[in-house]
Amino acid sequence: MNVRATSAAPVTEATPRTIEVRDIGSFHIGGDRVTLSGMPPRQRVSTVQGPLHPIDPNGEIIAGQMYVQYVRLAAPRSACPLLLWHGGGMTGVNWETTPDGRPGWQMFFLRAGFDVYVSDAVERGRASWAPYPEVYDEAPYFRTAKEAWEETFRFGPAGSWHADPLLRNPHRDLRFPVARMEAFMNQFAPRWATNDTRTQHAYDALIAHLPRSIVITHSQGGNFGLTAAVNAPDKVAAVVSLEPSGAPDPARYDPARLNGVPHLFVWGDYLDQHTFWVHSLPQARRWCDALAAAGGDAGWVDLPARGINGNSHALMADDNSDEIAALVLDWLRARKLVD
Amino acid sequence: MNVRATSAAPVTEATPRTIEVRDIGSFHIGGDRVTLSGMPPRQRVSTVQGPLHPIDPNGEIIAGQMYVQYVRLAAPRSACPLLLWHGGGMTGVNWETTPDGRPGWQMFFLRAGFDVYVSDAVERGRASWAPYPEVYDEAPYFRTAKEAWEETFRFGPAGSWHADPLLRNPHRDLRFPVARMEAFMNQFAPRWATNDTRTQHAYDALIAHLPRSIVITHSQGGNFGLTAAVNAPDKVAAVVSLEPSGAPDPARYDPARLNGVPHLFVWGDYLDQHTFWVHSLPQARRWCDALAAAGGDAGWVDLPARGINGNSHALMADDNSDEIAALVLDWLRARKLVD
Repeated sequence: MNVRATSAAPVTEATPRTIEVRDIGSFHIGGDRVTLSGMPPRQRVSTVQGPLHPIDPNGEIIAGQMYVQYVRLAAPRSACPLLLWHGGGMTGVNWETTPDGRPGWQMFFLRAGFDVYVSDAVERGRASWAPYPEVYDEAPYFRTAKEAWEETFRFGPAGSWHADPLLRNPHRDLRFPVARMEAFMNQFAPRWATNDTRTQHAYDALIAHLPRSIVITHSQGGNFGLTAAVNAPDKVAAVVSLEPSGAPDPARYDPARLNGVPHLFVWGDYLDQHTFWVHSLPQARRWCDALAAAGGDAGWVDLPARGINGNSHALMADDNSDEIAALVLDWLRARKLVD
Repeated sequence: MNVRATSAAPVTEATPRTIEVRDIGSFHIGGDRVTLSGMPPRQRVSTVQGPLHPIDPNGEIIAGQMYVQYVRLAAPRSACPLLLWHGGGMTGVNWETTPDGRPGWQMFFLRAGFDVYVSDAVERGRASWAPYPEVYDEAPYFRTAKEAWEETFRFGPAGSWHADPLLRNPHRDLRFPVARMEAFMNQFAPRWATNDTRTQHAYDALIAHLPRSIVITHSQGGNFGLTAAVNAPDKVAAVVSLEPSGAPDPARYDPARLNGVPHLFVWGDYLDQHTFWVHSLPQARRWCDALAAAGGDAGWVDLPARGINGNSHALMADDNSDEIAALVLDWLRARKLVD
């Protein structure tokens, strides 16, 4: 069976509101030069029918850089840039078009009046990556459909993934568009488990570089965002964590440092049915509780408890992604972070 | 010595002209599902202080997909989308901000009235990549500073690269901003020499998917763009090749197929001083001559012959990148491809 993975198909209806853009661009931040040595020479053909030419793999490269793409409005309605930080095994593409072809959170928050900065963390996407074992310690992990479906993204219970789309059994009421699973798989990127320090360093450098910012994270990005706020509470205006897979330890970090930084945690459905989440969620709960106990503004949104059922871990890709973005926008408006 | 590679520094002057944007988004195209099997189980910690959990590397992934990001205007002044295809060991980032912090060709052609589609080819950037040797045949190549400086990008003669910025000897009159070399290195991405077929397949799929398009390519992208035009001459409105590192063989492809498709080739300086280019340029010359001999509209711009000296291979990153973009725009206007 040949299942084509093109995600280009769906034509969305004309979007109602254009945006006046001042500029679109990008930069890298957080990298350092490293020198590769001792590797044997190679040779290659670099284009069809081109010449065979020698390649010396030894020399200087950059490692540890993060990629940041910005869209700045002609007349932003917030003083704070809004940063979108993706999760593990993913890139900033998560925030662009949804797998079923609707505008993503990037366009949503541009239309809401924010300058939006979408990053690809160290080792992912346009951030590039460095060789292993020379720079990174180990080989990367490639996300499989089964892991995504049954564990991380909670599209269906254990044993419900099947290579044949007709035989897949998603959770009842699931809001992720399962017919677009292969389109979602296009977005998966190899990840390492040994780059947390490099990645936190790059995110901290981004926060230091920009004006006081709003940070919206997903999954693995959660711990990085929450920690970036601890590291520079004066530079972070708010942190919104969509299902963070980890959080700072209150025994190690003082939550009172964050009394001026509102926090929101947002959670979907089926969390008690997946081992990874049963083990991971309590860390975030502990940090949220510690922030609140220290006098901070820390909100915890359990979507099913509000009558919003069926959300997977991919909150920005589910078919009610705009509804969840609107919930976040309302929360930011209530804190006067956008006109 | 610790040379920091942050490319975020330069603040550019306020750009004069905003653009009215209808939407920004992305899709992947050209991928197919493959199944990994026979690999041993692993386990990892996925976030700081998170739980150790098992990972089965076996299962379905997507391979061969290309990433395409679009910015569509509220009122484009061309019926043809303009596609920007990067070169080898690079990503679509090449077309965004220049290494010295000026707007790139993406913004230039948006301001000129085109819907612009920037892609990351198969294996690069947000296109993701697939494991080797399971899917790709070999290990990737990581571009070193020396290779970039002395060979591919022609910033200086053989032996002129040095790790210490003060000891680097660029070509006389070079237009690449050598003080921003580390910022440019941030953009380098690992490449393979075994994915030409997958990449051409994805580009051909993109051309088939979109309305009749203008294709602008750089370096390794050149052969893919010229071949895409051969494969679908009715879907390509024009091809602009910035220093293509290869081109179709007239003995294999009939250039008369392209009589309705204008072609422009643009070349910088120092080409006779670098072995790779001495060997590579004649292929493009042969194809250009064949197109013209068959009655086609095929232009060859030798920038130094026009009095524009000092351009490296990185034409869209040199300090006169806007001048070269304007030259291309004039050529498109003369062919009535934009109002």
